[in-house]
Amino acid sequence: MTIQTKFSRLGTDNAPGQEVRHASGSVESLLRGDKLAGRPVDFSHGDVDAFTPTPGSFEAFSAGVAAGGRQAYTEYRGDMGIREELAERLAAFTGAPVDGREGMIITPGTQGALFLAVASTVSRGDKVAIVQPDYFANRKLVEFLEGEMLPVRLNYMTTEGRAGLDLGQLEDAFKAGARVLLFSNPNNPVGVIYSRAEIETIAALARKYGATVIVDQLYSRLLYAGAPYTHFRAQAVDAENVVTIMGPSKTESLSGYRLGVAFGSRQIISRMEKLQAIVSLRAGGYSQAVLHTWFNEPQGWMEQRISAHQVIRDDLLNVFRSTEGIAVRTSEAGSYIFPGLPELVVSGGDFVRILRLQADVTVTPGTEFAPFSGNSVRLNFSQDHAAAVAASERLVALVERYRA
Amino acid sequence: MTIQTKFSRLGTDNAPGQEVRHASGSVESLLRGDKLAGRPVDFSHGDVDAFTPTPGSFEAFSAGVAAGGRQAYTEYRGDMGIREELAERLAAFTGAPVDGREGMIITPGTQGALFLAVASTVSRGDKVAIVQPDYFANRKLVEFLEGEMLPVRLNYMTTEGRAGLDLGQLEDAFKAGARVLLFSNPNNPVGVIYSRAEIETIAALARKYGATVIVDQLYSRLLYAGAPYTHFRAQAVDAENVVTIMGPSKTESLSGYRLGVAFGSRQIISRMEKLQAIVSLRAGGYSQAVLHTWFNEPQGWMEQRISAHQVIRDDLLNVFRSTEGIAVRTSEAGSYIFPGLPELVVSGGDFVRILRLQADVTVTPGTEFAPFSGNSVRLNFSQDHAAAVAASERLVALVERYRA
Repeated sequence: MTIQTKFSRLGTDNAPGQEVRHASGSVESLLRGDKLAGRPVDFSHGDVDAFTPTPGSFEAFSAGVAAGGRQAYTEYRGDMGIREELAERLAAFTGAPVDGREGMIITPGTQGALFLAVASTVSRGDKVAIVQPDYFANRKLVEFLEGEMLPVRLNYMTTEGRAGLDLGQLEDAFKAGARVLLFSNPNNPVGVIYSRAEIETIAALARKYGATVIVDQLYSRLLYAGAPYTHFRAQAVDAENVVTIMGPSKTESLSGYRLGVAFGSRQIISRMEKLQAIVSLRAGGYSQAVLHTWFNEPQGWMEQRISAHQVIRDDLLNVFRSTEGIAVRTSEAGSYIFPGLPELVVSGGDFVRILRLQADVTVTPGTEFAPFSGNSVRLNFSQDHAAAVAASERLVALVERYRA
Repeated sequence: MTIQTKFSRLGTDNAPGQEVRHASGSVESLLRGDKLAGRPVDFSHGDVDAFTPTPGSFEAFSAGVAAGGRQAYTEYRGDMGIREELAERLAAFTGAPVDGREGMIITPGTQGALFLAVASTVSRGDKVAIVQPDYFANRKLVEFLEGEMLPVRLNYMTTEGRAGLDLGQLEDAFKAGARVLLFSNPNNPVGVIYSRAEIETIAALARKYGATVIVDQLYSRLLYAGAPYTHFRAQAVDAENVVTIMGPSKTESLSGYRLGVAFGSRQIISRMEKLQAIVSLRAGGYSQAVLHTWFNEPQGWMEQRISAHQVIRDDLLNVFRSTEGIAVRTSEAGSYIFPGLPELVVSGGDFVRILRLQADVTVTPGTEFAPFSGNSVRLNFSQDHAAAVAASERLVALVERYRA
């Protein structure tokens, strides 16, 4: 594959956060009616001004700067003391041992961990099972590495009490040669949690076919009332075939520090470090010190953060569900909702641009997450409460205006 | 190539900063005599406690945190305002226009920029001209991307008034199909500067063969008295075929913030951004704010920093040159020296481990930079002055002890 072909497949024009690079010209001729006034809301990512970083995070960073050279220049896989401290907390959280010395790496964001994990397990021509819909970068990572993607459908609208993974299709993917499965749990963009039975079946299939499983658990701390969560790594038989990825960028609003961790398989973590050495050397040394605050937040802080998100979720679900033809599953975790819109006179992609232009509302088009999700949009509702509700009302007003 | 093969070629055991992962057992049987007492010095990287970060850098970071969401979530290529500010300063520094909007990307360290630049220009089977000796990651990047490396020799010991690049070998590499040249100027590990004539010839050859040139100018601000420096991008005929990489991690001691920039070719920068979106999303948002201090240091600060380094360089050269059989070229820029040692009774790699064990002195083995540099070691002399001199004296004492 030429470098031109490789990069032509790597479009980021519709990726969250890149909307600033759009020209608006293309939809001018489709516009109906006037602009809707209201405070702009960017649902493409959480608003860290509405939900501010963990208390003490800046102080931890400052202490890192004050520590000087030993904090600036850590091992490529991150500071050993911090790794050992986190290993203990992550073992308690996930219910299985974590080897901070040999089985953990600190990365520049969870995106960094995802890239390193996939690039350490997938080579050209390798088959990889990818859930649809799922985090938009998963597909791009496989494409960049010239792997072959075997999609596995998540039937999230027709199931209850489980995420809805098509387990038959997953086994077919393994039978067809997939030796890596990559998925997010809670799922991004839908916000569903895999049931214990689903996790156990995935673990059994991975064992049967000798597959490596990479689980992106970025949102696994932000669970709404009553949501039971099963950590894949605690169910897996062969811990050397599992890499779990987490980070404090979302629930904890620490995205500006660019921190993620991957833990599990010593062999894969060792490869990830070799690769990190040539990709970015290490996660920012001073930033690593911020991890002292992670899983170490003030008493009651996380509960408060979760309940504040749950209220916004409920209000947004109400707005969408009172509109004819909008279908949306209740998020069980995380801060995404993924409503499916009714048929419109414009394409899903154009509607997203119109929404930005006429209502100052930014959402991410569903096609970023699955080729068949063109009528859905993803909203990250980690926003100012009132602004998020008002912006959702503008969204449904435009749905009415452009309804087919 | 299987993933196992790919990673077996990516060794980082001897990479700078990874010495903490060494077991000492392997050299125990080779040891002669007792330990040499003295303050430990880690010459594998600069000591940011001896040469501290740019004044105002932490305050700039703090202002970034205070700015909140808009600083945490920048475009993937980095904050537009910062890019435009830097574009002006980098154009003035390098003597050719810089397009901050379309022709620049901010990356997690210069390592991040190097990875993205090479991965955006080199695909499997592509031929790449790589200088030897040169920065150790250059070779690994090409290997990871399954490119084919065509080495071009730098005859740095037998030349004066120029770096010593074998220009005939460079043309042969282009004739053999290399369409990318990657090199550092000033050279890492030797510290030599390419002459204007060398730069002009490289530019003419790149033009003749339609090659893309990636120039790592990480040390181009730390020039010693009288050293003339020629910016490649100002000599190149087709600016779209050049990417220049710089960053504040070394001279400015800002490595803990993980910042680099690449600028030049709009097409390559655009690919780099697409790739950054799946590799690490962006350079840390708050860290980007530290770039306000870059090329914007207090009056006289840079001159003072350069002269302090020059004094250390001169003292270290004296120590090495008063030892029979050590050959070393005077560094013209940067903070590296690359002495060649006389024949020893132990291998170069073992000597490096012995040095760490018996003298608390860490250096990087020459084989990281060229296969034929096994008798050289690299020292980053951005260190406490007295400690660096004493550590160099311990190094030569062990050369005497292990001399063949």
